[in-house]
Amino acid sequence: MPRTGRRPGEPATQGRIAAAARELFAERGFDATSVRAVAAHAGVDPSLVLHYYRSKRALFAAVMQLPVDQWAVAADLIDADESTLGERIVRFALGLWEDPALRPALLGIVRSAVTDPKAAAMLRDLFSRQGPVVVIRSFGRPDPELRAELVAAQIVGLAMARYVLGVEPLASADRDTLVEIVAPTIQRYVSGDLPRARRRRRAAGGDGEVT
Amino acid sequence: MPRTGRRPGEPATQGRIAAAARELFAERGFDATSVRAVAAHAGVDPSLVLHYYRSKRALFAAVMQLPVDQWAVAADLIDADESTLGERIVRFALGLWEDPALRPALLGIVRSAVTDPKAAAMLRDLFSRQGPVVVIRSFGRPDPELRAELVAAQIVGLAMARYVLGVEPLASADRDTLVEIVAPTIQRYVSGDLPRARRRRRAAGGDGEVT
Repeated sequence: MPRTGRRPGEPATQGRIAAAARELFAERGFDATSVRAVAAHAGVDPSLVLHYYRSKRALFAAVMQLPVDQWAVAADLIDADESTLGERIVRFALGLWEDPALRPALLGIVRSAVTDPKAAAMLRDLFSRQGPVVVIRSFGRPDPELRAELVAAQIVGLAMARYVLGVEPLASADRDTLVEIVAPTIQRYVSGDLPRARRRRRAAGGDGEVT
Repeated sequence: MPRTGRRPGEPATQGRIAAAARELFAERGFDATSVRAVAAHAGVDPSLVLHYYRSKRALFAAVMQLPVDQWAVAADLIDADESTLGERIVRFALGLWEDPALRPALLGIVRSAVTDPKAAAMLRDLFSRQGPVVVIRSFGRPDPELRAELVAAQIVGLAMARYVLGVEPLASADRDTLVEIVAPTIQRYVSGDLPRARRRRRAAGGDGEVT
């Protein structure tokens, strides 16, 4: 295993632990990754993992942060022509997933979010509370939160199919064609005339929801 | 816990075990669910679980089958007007997820598929090898497999957002409005003029893929 997880200022051992944790969380998700397994993978004693990171939860939060400044990205998108947003959002999202330095964190978040409430909260944050809503609101369309969630749902579904499940031919399709295919969907969710959503009486999430 | 899992011909104890397994797989996914936990939840000895179902794997396969005849659904869709397919596919898919008898199996498959290869294979099957491809091929458009996967990616992403993560306002939006919003996306993936996908040199899945 290449030890690529060290960041500036991290002692070498801590970097090894972080790299091992990123790899295992990405592969197995939060629930199925133990502190003991991370320690074994990094070649250190479990007590050392807990010395650097108080708990498995703190370890996950520390190593799964995406090194992407959502607000800087949002600012760039606000400055751009609204009619090209669809294409630029898809290209940006696929670029993140196809960056070997970022994919483990994204896989780790998706694989953990389906069963772990805190990881689900991280993914919900990526969906709606950050950059995308700000961008969409800046164009003055109604329902900016719903629009941001529709965009994120399409992107997450595409990532599930292409990067998590690897369904073919989608997984091997070239990126430019995929951008061209999906961009009009995103463009319509961002700036199209959509019917206004009414609120249902009962939440759809019900007892299946990760809260 | 209501014991709703019994099907015709199942002995009562086996029905209790199946219901407990469906509930835990739906909640935690395959990896984090043990035979011991299923037995405890059903109030039986673990050996009885293994008496009825040889292994955790066999138990998962037995209780996670969707009682939906994909081919019957496909036949209905083939007979219908192509221009309304988008709407009918979204309505059908949301209907499955909002059926209290089916949601646990769907949640279980999605929660397991992100980390478990066999569950991933079940989800890949739902994506492409069954009904949808047949429907799309029947209309003679190019790239029917890719189209079916684009449809499934949009549906799975929507289900992740609405039923697994419960992001708001999407989770509480009424079903009819959501159908109206997403139908044109599905319609375009099924029957629109899409650019032909070229195959990339290397698979996008890489080492992140569940195989």
